[in-house]
Amino acid sequence: MIRLSLIGIGTGNPDHLTRAAIRTMNEADMILLPRKGAAKSDLIDLRRAICAEVLTGGTRIVEFDMPTRADQPAYVEAVIDWHDAIAAIWMKQIAVHLPNGGTLALLVWGDPSLYDSSLRIAERLGPKVEIRVVPGITSIQALTAAHGICLNRLADPVLVTTGRQLREQSWPPGVRDVVVMLDGHCAFQTLEPEGIEIWWGAYLGMEQQALAQGPLAIAGPEIVKRRAALRQRHGWIMDVYLLRLT
Amino acid sequence: MIRLSLIGIGTGNPDHLTRAAIRTMNEADMILLPRKGAAKSDLIDLRRAICAEVLTGGTRIVEFDMPTRADQPAYVEAVIDWHDAIAAIWMKQIAVHLPNGGTLALLVWGDPSLYDSSLRIAERLGPKVEIRVVPGITSIQALTAAHGICLNRLADPVLVTTGRQLREQSWPPGVRDVVVMLDGHCAFQTLEPEGIEIWWGAYLGMEQQALAQGPLAIAGPEIVKRRAALRQRHGWIMDVYLLRLT
Ligand SMILES: C[S@@+](CC[C@H](N)C(=O)[O-])C[C@H]1O[C@@H](n2cnc3c(N)ncnc32)[C@H](O)[C@@H]1O
Ligand SMILES: C[S@@+](CC[C@H](N)C(=O)[O-])C[C@H]1O[C@@H](n2cnc3c(N)ncnc32)[C@H](O)[C@@H]1O
Repeated sequence: MIRLSLIGIGTGNPDHLTRAAIRTMNEADMILLPRKGAAKSDLIDLRRAICAEVLTGGTRIVEFDMPTRADQPAYVEAVIDWHDAIAAIWMKQIAVHLPNGGTLALLVWGDPSLYDSSLRIAERLGPKVEIRVVPGITSIQALTAAHGICLNRLADPVLVTTGRQLREQSWPPGVRDVVVMLDGHCAFQTLEPEGIEIWWGAYLGMEQQALAQGPLAIAGPEIVKRRAALRQRHGWIMDVYLLRLT
Repeated sequence: MIRLSLIGIGTGNPDHLTRAAIRTMNEADMILLPRKGAAKSDLIDLRRAICAEVLTGGTRIVEFDMPTRADQPAYVEAVIDWHDAIAAIWMKQIAVHLPNGGTLALLVWGDPSLYDSSLRIAERLGPKVEIRVVPGITSIQALTAAHGICLNRLADPVLVTTGRQLREQSWPPGVRDVVVMLDGHCAFQTLEPEGIEIWWGAYLGMEQQALAQGPLAIAGPEIVKRRAALRQRHGWIMDVYLLRLT
């Protein structure tokens, strides 16, 4: 019997780890860490540092190279193939390192439920693998905490969406507050900025953390420039923002 | 100078506490705990237990009685008055216990940014009080972790809304996945259930945790019954659910 623990680790700050995350890491026989190439080596370094800091027992750490996603036009098919490939690697590592069963843990960025594929990949492992999820601080919470703001207005709804959706559909119907994730191209530029305020954050929780806030007409262009510079300096960037109709 | 730390503690499970939450609690000179009356004494007991478990130094714990919100028809005005009253109590406690400044911490259920008034109340304390927010696990993460599900579908948006909004507006436009919070009356009953699936959770993270899942047509009526029974048994209930158009 294999147990697979998907552990939300928060957004890069080891202090985002919960007691449940630390306990579950220590209870695991093995932790699998993905290597995502030189440009994103910060991310594996961070996971290594987290392991070094909180593991107290005999949990084994095994690293593997993440397969890269085919850059084919059929996006959904490319993702499915990619998930299949990752699941196959997990299975192989289980067969090699846990031939008699045991607990495998994966350190999932933020929370495993939010724009993350680990659960979808884990489902491919079949009924003999029991899945357990440990919740983590999401980049949304990291954003609002860093700015000291509420996500919602009194009793109002909030939409969580992606850069692609925002670009394709403009301002979504029925909401005044929108969180945008997975946005590689500053999709807020496609909006008419009047009456919109933005709270933006990159590398939230990390040393490189960068924040910006203001009316979209003014802050927007500044963020576009700053984001490009930061991305060049660090080799990668992750950012998230809240847009609010005032 | 007063520093006010709003610390997200997760949804009742002491293992939801992050390292940052534990550190910030211990750095505080005083932690204020609200008493909310006999029916909700579980909630203060839980905060007391968390303090007993993680505090290692000289942090003082001070309890106060939460004022009750006037049951007047003007909802927004009632909330504003209520927040003013709470801010006045915090100010008084600061004057009494921290006359020479220091750090006050409040233990906020879930995450301080999500349908919580602490930040709005804290803003009433004026510029001499420096506010710091420590993010926490929200009931949304607790829900998806307990069910082992993703919040969003691949690259799709998710709406977070309230029971009142759902009741007044029916299914919101433009989304297939909706999280409903602050719902005292099972607002999902107002929806045409065909084609909707529900993932429901109450007392998430706590000993009393209850889960249900299924097509809304079948699971909905069962949840209504079960919720009433649980509420009667425990004297209070908090629940949250995800609705998904299939
Ligand atoms: C694949 S999703 C994973 C989200 C993650 N599971 C969570 O709970 O936040 C990656 C997106 O999350 C956001 N993100 C994650 N970490 C971040 C950070 N430290 N700072 C800013 N945004 C972050 C960005 O929008 C990024 O495009
Ligand atoms: C005033 S809001 C506070 C939310 C909190 N700040 C959070 O991050 O989850 C209270 C609502 O949160 C949800 N909630 C909070 N704790 C919960 C729990 N342990 N189980 C289920 N729902 C919970 C319910 O929808 C409840 O009506």
